[in-house]
Amino acid sequence: VIVFLDGRFVPEDRASVSVFDRGFLLGDGLFETVRVAGGRPFRFAQHLDRLSRGADFLKIRLPFSLKDIQEFATQLIEQNQLPESILRLTLTRGVGKRGYSILGATEPTVMMLLHPVPEVMDEPLQWELTTSSFRIPVPDPLAAFKTTSKILNVMARAEAEARGADEALLLNTNDEVAETAGGNIFWVDQGKICTVPTDCGALPGITREVVLEICHSIGLKTDKRVIKRKQLRDAEGIFVTQSALGVIPVASLDNLPVPVSPLVDQIAVAYNELLWQGHA
Amino acid sequence: VIVFLDGRFVPEDRASVSVFDRGFLLGDGLFETVRVAGGRPFRFAQHLDRLSRGADFLKIRLPFSLKDIQEFATQLIEQNQLPESILRLTLTRGVGKRGYSILGATEPTVMMLLHPVPEVMDEPLQWELTTSSFRIPVPDPLAAFKTTSKILNVMARAEAEARGADEALLLNTNDEVAETAGGNIFWVDQGKICTVPTDCGALPGITREVVLEICHSIGLKTDKRVIKRKQLRDAEGIFVTQSALGVIPVASLDNLPVPVSPLVDQIAVAYNELLWQGHA
Repeated sequence: VIVFLDGRFVPEDRASVSVFDRGFLLGDGLFETVRVAGGRPFRFAQHLDRLSRGADFLKIRLPFSLKDIQEFATQLIEQNQLPESILRLTLTRGVGKRGYSILGATEPTVMMLLHPVPEVMDEPLQWELTTSSFRIPVPDPLAAFKTTSKILNVMARAEAEARGADEALLLNTNDEVAETAGGNIFWVDQGKICTVPTDCGALPGITREVVLEICHSIGLKTDKRVIKRKQLRDAEGIFVTQSALGVIPVASLDNLPVPVSPLVDQIAVAYNELLWQGHA
Repeated sequence: VIVFLDGRFVPEDRASVSVFDRGFLLGDGLFETVRVAGGRPFRFAQHLDRLSRGADFLKIRLPFSLKDIQEFATQLIEQNQLPESILRLTLTRGVGKRGYSILGATEPTVMMLLHPVPEVMDEPLQWELTTSSFRIPVPDPLAAFKTTSKILNVMARAEAEARGADEALLLNTNDEVAETAGGNIFWVDQGKICTVPTDCGALPGITREVVLEICHSIGLKTDKRVIKRKQLRDAEGIFVTQSALGVIPVASLDNLPVPVSPLVDQIAVAYNELLWQGHA
């Protein structure tokens, strides 16, 4: 595959960064994961907006305009002939001085690569969730941004997989439900589609926003509310949202079956329609 | 300079890792910073022990024996002719599948590089500390290990430098003093040398251990106790410990002067003697 790296398109085996890059040394960067459908990155403007706000917060200069990044992404998709794929966009602070100080690190690294969309299985995607022993800190000003310092999410997912589950449910340091290792959490309560407020430690997910929009457009009521794990177990249905895989129904939580809600299917169908809108 | 990378010694400009390396993508790795004095990494065994325990916890296989890493480090110091330097040892999970799952990532990356020791200034090193707005989460099982997911430390240091200070004092989510962005915190109270217990969110620093040993050997009483920032302001002296720079006296905390304690100087001198023990 071809990788975009700092303004150039390079073959995978030559796509490398300096070991002095602070992304590699310190997780000092940001990323976005974007679904590419019909050759176009879905909701790319929102992803780039989050990246841009994160770069402002971290004081990393974005060395390309958002328009240029969109153009580079289009070229990358064409060069790889991957109109159905998952785009990973990474921005790091680049090479700097020794240690934590950001002073002097003025040449950021921008990288984009594509992964093919996972093959559709015979059975529809469903996740078994397990509650993680790792906790999301609250309050955390960094929670609003998708940094590359993701060891907590990596370890939470590894713990879940070691238990035979697909994904980790993460609580915050106040014992409230926050998110999953790789997505936002939704549940159905008395016909309402609920998710947690972002100040519970949830990343403000782009797919989370899309799902809230969809609910409004198809007449489903929504609510953002704090929830404990015990109450989540009483939900009429649970699903996870993320950009790579979209709407993922949850089949079980901590080995207890979760009811199947027709509303979850309805949202998943509407999401896929939106993803494919205007494409063959 | 020459860099050690996965068993080879390569020139700096060819020392690069794949953009698919999870160290770069997700901060999925560990590191150690080690002072090299008289050609020998100081307390290397303890650093390697912490790295090794971290690798077990993160389920990253260390692809070399600790003895081999020690031998490689010796060669690296010789090849660079840097007997006075700071060694950065990095271990990442290497290339894996897309996303957080660690499954299939079986070829870790090991990298070592050297920085010259900062030149000795005319005036002795002293730090101005400022209390960070970022908080260390407690409890956090990851706090015992030095992962490469260090965006919180980077941002805390950046905030401190933006305020004209040298370093950030970090409180934990319980409002207790935890550590600094790049070191452990000590203070003097009624002649006792105090630091916080590691379960306050402090990294179990190697230099912290060395300082506790030194105190015992020169007859200074020590204590590990929880402290709030207000109480820290009443200390008879404050210092920070870290492997790169050793014992660093604190001149001020939040713009208020910190008393100069002769005990801090005594510890700094003893630390340097230990560092130089057996060297010319």
